[in-house]
Amino acid sequence: MNSKPSADPATLSYEQAGVNYDLIDPLKVAAQRAAAATAANLAGHGFTEVPASRGESAYVLDVGPFYLASIVECLGSKALVADEMSRLTGRSWYEGIAQDTIAMAINDLITVGATPLVVQAYWAAGGSDWFGDAARAQALVAGWKRACDVCGVAWGGGETPALTGIVEAGRIDLAASCTGLVNPKSRLTLGDKLGAGDAIVLLASSGIHANGLSLARKLVERLPQGYLTPLPSGRSYGEALLDPTTLYAPVTEALHRAGITPHYSANITGHGWRKLLRHPSTLTYRIHTAPPVPEVLAFIQREARQDDHEAYGTLNMGAGFALFVPAAEAQRTVEVARAQGVPAWVAGSVEAGPKRVVIEPLGVEFGGEELQLR
Amino acid sequence: MNSKPSADPATLSYEQAGVNYDLIDPLKVAAQRAAAATAANLAGHGFTEVPASRGESAYVLDVGPFYLASIVECLGSKALVADEMSRLTGRSWYEGIAQDTIAMAINDLITVGATPLVVQAYWAAGGSDWFGDAARAQALVAGWKRACDVCGVAWGGGETPALTGIVEAGRIDLAASCTGLVNPKSRLTLGDKLGAGDAIVLLASSGIHANGLSLARKLVERLPQGYLTPLPSGRSYGEALLDPTTLYAPVTEALHRAGITPHYSANITGHGWRKLLRHPSTLTYRIHTAPPVPEVLAFIQREARQDDHEAYGTLNMGAGFALFVPAAEAQRTVEVARAQGVPAWVAGSVEAGPKRVVIEPLGVEFGGEELQLR
Repeated sequence: MNSKPSADPATLSYEQAGVNYDLIDPLKVAAQRAAAATAANLAGHGFTEVPASRGESAYVLDVGPFYLASIVECLGSKALVADEMSRLTGRSWYEGIAQDTIAMAINDLITVGATPLVVQAYWAAGGSDWFGDAARAQALVAGWKRACDVCGVAWGGGETPALTGIVEAGRIDLAASCTGLVNPKSRLTLGDKLGAGDAIVLLASSGIHANGLSLARKLVERLPQGYLTPLPSGRSYGEALLDPTTLYAPVTEALHRAGITPHYSANITGHGWRKLLRHPSTLTYRIHTAPPVPEVLAFIQREARQDDHEAYGTLNMGAGFALFVPAAEAQRTVEVARAQGVPAWVAGSVEAGPKRVVIEPLGVEFGGEELQLR
Repeated sequence: MNSKPSADPATLSYEQAGVNYDLIDPLKVAAQRAAAATAANLAGHGFTEVPASRGESAYVLDVGPFYLASIVECLGSKALVADEMSRLTGRSWYEGIAQDTIAMAINDLITVGATPLVVQAYWAAGGSDWFGDAARAQALVAGWKRACDVCGVAWGGGETPALTGIVEAGRIDLAASCTGLVNPKSRLTLGDKLGAGDAIVLLASSGIHANGLSLARKLVERLPQGYLTPLPSGRSYGEALLDPTTLYAPVTEALHRAGITPHYSANITGHGWRKLLRHPSTLTYRIHTAPPVPEVLAFIQREARQDDHEAYGTLNMGAGFALFVPAAEAQRTVEVARAQGVPAWVAGSVEAGPKRVVIEPLGVEFGGEELQLR
């Protein structure tokens, strides 16, 4: 499932950063089997699941006049970077962290063609005192509201438990759930129309987003100045890591208004560009144009001594979201995204052939066996 | 908001058990205000929120042909009891813990009249190794599936992050999100029809459910045999604490099939019977029949030296869910619940008068100022 650790002992791979998928995967498989078996329960209510959404980024039900999509997503460890940067700079970074958390849920939900409608907040702190830092708490609230406004969703409510003994003292476990509708039903995007001849449009990322942070944090141990290490632009490594994740819902909603329905979408998160292999079809994804690499990701690649195969297979490397659209609509898709303030490129095309991604400018290739999500 | 600590220094109140609401509440108020302001975002999609659902147990949107309800809920600290009991007995208790987690979400969602349709799992472990205990992981999966089957919901998917540095090593932070529909719309239960003359039907709890566990855990420090202290029945304190939370969705769905639409519902969780004051109306709730107290709750009351005011204001004391129904349907409501295997009682009635709960058999009264949830 993951890239092999490189032979170079100086290379820092994702596994070395402490995430052991071999322990998690058997549980995931058991859970997926049990979950699939519960679909039959919907018949009692006169509804059905959309089976092709199993294994996709959001789960979809057919409730008659439209489809219902839902998801819960975790921020991950990015809050640890915010905590350390607060200690180093005296600033609160939780406004951006709030946006990151919402982005984790919304950028997945929209891949199926859903309009996100409601977000619920899950803020589980290591103790009541977490909420006693008023500046930090207010930043979290302000960032959460702003991200909801950007995405046009209602913030329905949520949970703010104090979980002493479960969440570590001084820390917070952040997650978001999101519910939306695919409306009209013709917006459903599960890849059944994906095929040779489609264009691949990549949308710019703002930086590392909220995946790859274990690696980014591990790297700090190698840097004499740690998070305050200056990047070429003069910004610090820590500050650049905390650039909030781009929210892509404004783009997908604008595409709908422009009459463009993608054949498929992929949120590029963990596993980097291997996520272009997400759909189960056997197709070749040939990339002729790679977006510019955000400074912070170029820095990580260099300092972690990753080759392009490792870097593009782990990090987003400048592409946060992929849209697979009819070739005739590729240029207009780019224009719609740019009008929403999101840089975009016609980056490649879908071809008949073995399941693989070919990044021609870099000479990198990922085979279908390098991404096993189902 | 909470009961005052008793003058008796031997009494163990909820505040003494370590939850400081004074630190959390300012954040909650700020979050509620910011969340309310996001409702306007729905207009862009042609939808509206149901304003009366703000402050209720689930958030409700009007999406045209039906209402959409959603929620995210945390298990809380009950998993810590399961961990300690695993250490003491060698058994895994996570099948029941899974049911508890789902119950936290579903028993809230159904209060608004929604049929729960989809549950998402949020299982955030302190490290990948949590999932390496196959028996425990399989119990969690099996219990989760079983609870979904009991409630007639589809398990859509979820998140199983390993959050080293955020969640404590060896621990797991469990939560569930749930989405449902109020369908037909006439099932919406937000209390607009609640009034004098309604009957109060109480549904039996199975024990402590998943609220009050901080108190229950604190109490262990006073018990020489700890969790293995035998209760009068011979069962241990720890085992009784881990009785899984009753799932009430089968009752609310059966009521719908029987043509009974409650005027209001309340899930009795934290704050105990003060939750009977949940609706903003100024009404008196007079209880003439209190359900039998589960052995484990009687034990906690006695050992924590709580008077009835403190105990009924903190724990469910045998009543896990309250239905406020037209008096003419009270007896049939009880019969429908019993037919689903849930003991139920016509326990009292709603009267004109000041906002208060009067538990006549116990001489206990809670005023409206004793529950401030909004």
